[in-house]
Amino acid sequence: MTADASLRVRPLAALPEVRAGDDLARLVRDAGGDAFPPGSALVVSHKVVSKAEGALVRLADVTPGPDALALAERLERDPRLLQVVLDESVAVVRAERGVLICRTRHGLVAAHAGVDQSNVPDGWCVTLPRDPDASARRLRAALPGRPAVVIADSFGRPWRHGQAEVAIGCAGLTPIDDQRGGVDRDGRELVATQIAIADQVAAAADLVRGKTSGQPAVVVEGLGRWVTVDDGPGAVALRRDADEDLFGPRA
Amino acid sequence: MTADASLRVRPLAALPEVRAGDDLARLVRDAGGDAFPPGSALVVSHKVVSKAEGALVRLADVTPGPDALALAERLERDPRLLQVVLDESVAVVRAERGVLICRTRHGLVAAHAGVDQSNVPDGWCVTLPRDPDASARRLRAALPGRPAVVIADSFGRPWRHGQAEVAIGCAGLTPIDDQRGGVDRDGRELVATQIAIADQVAAAADLVRGKTSGQPAVVVEGLGRWVTVDDGPGAVALRRDADEDLFGPRA
Repeated sequence: MTADASLRVRPLAALPEVRAGDDLARLVRDAGGDAFPPGSALVVSHKVVSKAEGALVRLADVTPGPDALALAERLERDPRLLQVVLDESVAVVRAERGVLICRTRHGLVAAHAGVDQSNVPDGWCVTLPRDPDASARRLRAALPGRPAVVIADSFGRPWRHGQAEVAIGCAGLTPIDDQRGGVDRDGRELVATQIAIADQVAAAADLVRGKTSGQPAVVVEGLGRWVTVDDGPGAVALRRDADEDLFGPRA
Repeated sequence: MTADASLRVRPLAALPEVRAGDDLARLVRDAGGDAFPPGSALVVSHKVVSKAEGALVRLADVTPGPDALALAERLERDPRLLQVVLDESVAVVRAERGVLICRTRHGLVAAHAGVDQSNVPDGWCVTLPRDPDASARRLRAALPGRPAVVIADSFGRPWRHGQAEVAIGCAGLTPIDDQRGGVDRDGRELVATQIAIADQVAAAADLVRGKTSGQPAVVVEGLGRWVTVDDGPGAVALRRDADEDLFGPRA
């Protein structure tokens, strides 16, 4: 199947509540992810990966330091939650108007460093997986047919309302289709054309599940051109380094 | 069909080269877009819309002013092209490291204000449609079955490599699924959850076409929940106003 053929995007059945130590691959198989045709990808919300990996923090165990306390006063948030956010971060990019945007230790730039309290037990928060590409590789290896695997999270955007899903981890998928050096139909060089395939796969998957429906796993079929035998570079290839960042912390 | 059912994404046949004054709806119908099931959207690259509307500029007709000449020297670009970019812009957000990011008169923040020379005759450039939501409404009204219509462009992202498609115009599609005030599975309020549906539809569509293949038109089926009878607010709802912008021009 070529990438010019059609794509099909379908949700798997809802997963049960995922707990630390759960075998996520088994849960995916049990939800209907037991046969992946060639050229398909499994997209999973990062939250179930984080939960299975035990990336949860109980707020009662957190002692906020002075930076978290100061931020909490400015932003009117729980200082313990902000301490978890700071622990996940290498830099605060913006802390204004109730918004806290951080660069995580992975190099992702996200609100609250990806730390989240929704669909998490009361009094706890969930952080991003420690190494989302490694998580994707492990999940891939444990699934029948070795589909591509994308671990997705929803990120806000500086100049656009609403959140869109991006790939924070992937394996077996070309993360970026680099067409630089290619030519357009008139033979003109396509200077800036690098397509964020993995992010677009994550976005497509989000269209078939509700945030509240407990359907974190989605299968995208028809990605033939971009599904690879090797695990490939992973979603780290999508992250722009801090030294190339034109929109970093205010000087 | 509910939004939890599966989605199908398929390209229409290649369009012929689009010229100013062409009837884009007729070209779409001739390319196979002659029957849209309920809940489907037509996604078209902005470039064919711009071309049909005559939004092309011949560089030989442009006299660059002092700002364009200064920028051209800094960025090593054609000053006439930069004059077109400035004409499309209300503010320069960044002009550094060979990158020129502008806020357009529509309120979009994009490299080169969306002005582009690929797949355009030599010596010309193409600008964004003057009012992409209006373009989407017109195209919708002229298509059988009145599918939702999305006009898409590929935008870079500050912290991520690669471009992803976003909706610069739409009609008949809920641009943002606003779940604020909703609750998660544990009854906790979903504070920040607004999902950029139209952008994710644009991204999904991009996965079935190559940039060079001349397949600007894609049909996405299965969007039942988000396809509306009314044209709705359009993609303007996705644009964050300059006064809310935490990443605007350097002070």
